[in-house]
Amino acid sequence: MYEGIVQDLIDELGRLPGIGPKSAQRIAFHILQTQSFDVARLAEILTTVRERVKFCSICGNISEQDTCTICRDPRRDPALICVVEEAKDVVAIERTREFRGLYHVLGGAISPIDGIGPDDLSIRQLMQRLADGTVQEVIIATDPNLEGEATATYLSRLLTTLEIRVTRLASGLPVGGDLEYADEVTLGRAFEGRRSVS
Amino acid sequence: MYEGIVQDLIDELGRLPGIGPKSAQRIAFHILQTQSFDVARLAEILTTVRERVKFCSICGNISEQDTCTICRDPRRDPALICVVEEAKDVVAIERTREFRGLYHVLGGAISPIDGIGPDDLSIRQLMQRLADGTVQEVIIATDPNLEGEATATYLSRLLTTLEIRVTRLASGLPVGGDLEYADEVTLGRAFEGRRSVS
Repeated sequence: MYEGIVQDLIDELGRLPGIGPKSAQRIAFHILQTQSFDVARLAEILTTVRERVKFCSICGNISEQDTCTICRDPRRDPALICVVEEAKDVVAIERTREFRGLYHVLGGAISPIDGIGPDDLSIRQLMQRLADGTVQEVIIATDPNLEGEATATYLSRLLTTLEIRVTRLASGLPVGGDLEYADEVTLGRAFEGRRSVS
Repeated sequence: MYEGIVQDLIDELGRLPGIGPKSAQRIAFHILQTQSFDVARLAEILTTVRERVKFCSICGNISEQDTCTICRDPRRDPALICVVEEAKDVVAIERTREFRGLYHVLGGAISPIDGIGPDDLSIRQLMQRLADGTVQEVIIATDPNLEGEATATYLSRLLTTLEIRVTRLASGLPVGGDLEYADEVTLGRAFEGRRSVS
């Protein structure tokens, strides 16, 4: 509908996840009309980001060096590994400031529907990391959905062969939520995982 | 939370309209991890789009030449001008294939709250286009909201001084919608604007 490059911009923006044709159009016009928006900077970052960003050779987290800041940090506890699906899960957990161990990023979850099996995830690399006996506990922090649970089950069976404690993040009511709005499965899990308080 | 350039990318994406921190993060990871996504092309379009795109010297629509494709089209009726707020409104109206006249893009609407008065819009240019007597009807197609209505009222008063027919797009029920879901103001307008069918 637009002339040449404006339509090209709308089309390219529309390829990004979560951006439909209407949003793409609004963003394109914003870029065109807002002089304070630094297009050159965004363009430069886009050009360099893929070259500069690598994946940590130890844990698979995103990193600008061969190993990520967490794996390089001597204050982190090497006896504890938290297994997550994606690099963004690392950021979410880091935000809690609760966990002082290391991570292992699987690069996804087992999903037969999408054709993703255990061999497509960095499970072999995880087993190699566990081989030298340093790690004492593996915390499985995959998503609490179908694929995440399948991956957790697969991993926990695989890890029982080793002398390592394997744990899974607790499921239950989200803090700050209302009990009446919790779905049945979450409420069921909250009952199952109930803890003694006295 | 992320290292260097990844956070830079998230920050820049987050400056785009309608993209919050979560979406910015999701888009950044998509750009990083999806090899099929052509970053270089998006970067190149971003770099050139502002240089290549101008505004039509006649109507203010976006254009890659001095005048836009609509103003250059000899099949369009020069006696009819449709006044819109933004270039994207031109596209919306063109999609209907109902209108064969020309456009005038105001570049916004009168909004005292945002400090936008008549002098910030291309109203003087519109008056110049109307001066030679070619135009017989001005259709005011500003948005049916507070600012759009204020602009329409201002324009219609200004244009009564000229011997030109001034019309406003009809307000009423959206086609395909349910009457019970229409808001009171729209329903009220639909009554006001009711038409005889026999």
